[in-house]
Amino acid sequence: MAEKRKADDAEPITAQEPKKAKSDGTTTQEDPHWATPLSSFQGFEMIKILNDHPKNKSVFVHGKFRGHEEEAVVILEKTPFSEETLPFALSGETKLKVGLKNDIYGNYHGTPPAQVNGIKVSVVYPATPKHLVKYSQQQTYLVQETGDDYRNITLPFLQAEAFRIQWVYNILEHKQESERIVFEDPDKETGFILLPDMKWDLKQVNDLYLIAIVHKHGIKSLRDLTAEHLPLLHNILKKGQEAIQEKFSIPPCKLRIYLHYQPSYYHLHVHFTHLNFDAPGTGVERAHLLSDVIEHLEIMPDYYSKKTLAFCLRENDQLLAEFRKAGRVPQKSE
Amino acid sequence: MAEKRKADDAEPITAQEPKKAKSDGTTTQEDPHWATPLSSFQGFEMIKILNDHPKNKSVFVHGKFRGHEEEAVVILEKTPFSEETLPFALSGETKLKVGLKNDIYGNYHGTPPAQVNGIKVSVVYPATPKHLVKYSQQQTYLVQETGDDYRNITLPFLQAEAFRIQWVYNILEHKQESERIVFEDPDKETGFILLPDMKWDLKQVNDLYLIAIVHKHGIKSLRDLTAEHLPLLHNILKKGQEAIQEKFSIPPCKLRIYLHYQPSYYHLHVHFTHLNFDAPGTGVERAHLLSDVIEHLEIMPDYYSKKTLAFCLRENDQLLAEFRKAGRVPQKSE
Repeated sequence: MAEKRKADDAEPITAQEPKKAKSDGTTTQEDPHWATPLSSFQGFEMIKILNDHPKNKSVFVHGKFRGHEEEAVVILEKTPFSEETLPFALSGETKLKVGLKNDIYGNYHGTPPAQVNGIKVSVVYPATPKHLVKYSQQQTYLVQETGDDYRNITLPFLQAEAFRIQWVYNILEHKQESERIVFEDPDKETGFILLPDMKWDLKQVNDLYLIAIVHKHGIKSLRDLTAEHLPLLHNILKKGQEAIQEKFSIPPCKLRIYLHYQPSYYHLHVHFTHLNFDAPGTGVERAHLLSDVIEHLEIMPDYYSKKTLAFCLRENDQLLAEFRKAGRVPQKSE
Repeated sequence: MAEKRKADDAEPITAQEPKKAKSDGTTTQEDPHWATPLSSFQGFEMIKILNDHPKNKSVFVHGKFRGHEEEAVVILEKTPFSEETLPFALSGETKLKVGLKNDIYGNYHGTPPAQVNGIKVSVVYPATPKHLVKYSQQQTYLVQETGDDYRNITLPFLQAEAFRIQWVYNILEHKQESERIVFEDPDKETGFILLPDMKWDLKQVNDLYLIAIVHKHGIKSLRDLTAEHLPLLHNILKKGQEAIQEKFSIPPCKLRIYLHYQPSYYHLHVHFTHLNFDAPGTGVERAHLLSDVIEHLEIMPDYYSKKTLAFCLRENDQLLAEFRKAGRVPQKSE
């Protein structure tokens, strides 16, 4: 359906007259129809399921509202059980239809009362072709980056892109987020700032997620690490563990401490997550345990400039285009 | 509540008279009350939430039915959206209450009609203290196993346990599951059998999951691998990729190919999963990419007998007790 849209339609539209306003009483000249909150999915026509996460009970749908030209992306996600809704779910109001019953084990299909059944709904409306790409399942490729690939493909790409990391310097210089700092070692060579990741709300330690950002500038990633950085890495491991034990009472054996490759920004940082927390980016194709990094550099000082490192790139990652150009990833697959 | 139960009550009860049968018309002498399928949660009293998976929208609850002595474990899990239920969820019947609305982005709380709201219910009733342990969240510990720890703690434990792997030999000798074999290289030194993992139903390639089991006996795990196994490992990588490309049209760059440490059984095997599939056991604390294993052995033939390997152990894993005895894991934490 995207080809129906004008190419210049790719940026969010901030003000626009309704083209075929529905006479639903909610549309005014000052207030285009899409600016009015929805009260139901009345008139919604599904075009396509963009992505589906059965494990998380969520689904991403592309559709439109009857009588309107603009398209929409709708995200539906079932809500977790909570202490408030559980008593309703476990009440006589929840009807059970037996499936399999074997001895002490029984499976049922339950129909709980309304309080239990809320869903989280996100609507992007009007949605542009860019939104459709963003919310669609993207092809992912595992790239095997040799040391030479890094020097010939990845490094020139990073240098040309010159990713902005001013926000990192703002944190290190206490210009931003200084009230969030959990621990700081100010040493210019081996020091770092430890602060909560944006994904952690600090409400419970089950999903504890902190980031250690090194004070030293110029270490872009794992690839730049050599044996000379061992004091820095040992310091992060030891003092990071101690700070988390002290502030959050979580001992080292409950922590997963790792670096990402590729990282999401090219200034060295280390992730600390609770071992029970299945945080995004803890998979073998992206995470490298800090303890392994230290041992590898102890065994072989230039390990990370020589070792082939595997990581995933998605169809619209620019670095994938560079690997394709160099013939290191097939042109198209599946 | 577990202390109320007799110690010998730990095995599933297969037949027992109701102690205080409720006069609900469903209980007879031949048919103890718990043998009758439930029709609702009428009379259910929650004792404790044993475990909670908000990401998966499931919850494990310990409780009892009013007037009955036996306790129960109830597992509730919301159902995914499906092609059948989506049209109801996206209809005018789903009422929306606006939360945050900013320009083209809107968040809502939705109340969909009954068809969308099914839940999957599993009931274990009567539940024993063993069930309560099984369904409770277990403490997990990250263990750093040095080469010496392996030789002094893990290896003696494995030898004493003598885990049964007859079922593996049955597969290798075509006595079991021969119809499931996807590919076989019969070479006694470098050969293997490739077959679907039990978790994969072969219905779609999105959750493709195959296992390569080596023909050679006696390689317990990663720890036993040396440079002499390189021909075996190269062979699994190459022929496994080729077989999957041929049978399932999935190219190598879409595959995550890895070993587990600790493995779930001590006969060398390699996992092949679709890169898009967030399979259990792909985390950095358990998975080791086959390509990394090969490169490590090429760099350092005895890498896996020397390298410290990190992995998780749960509170009721026997190996944890061995590491505790040796003072390599704290006695109790949190």
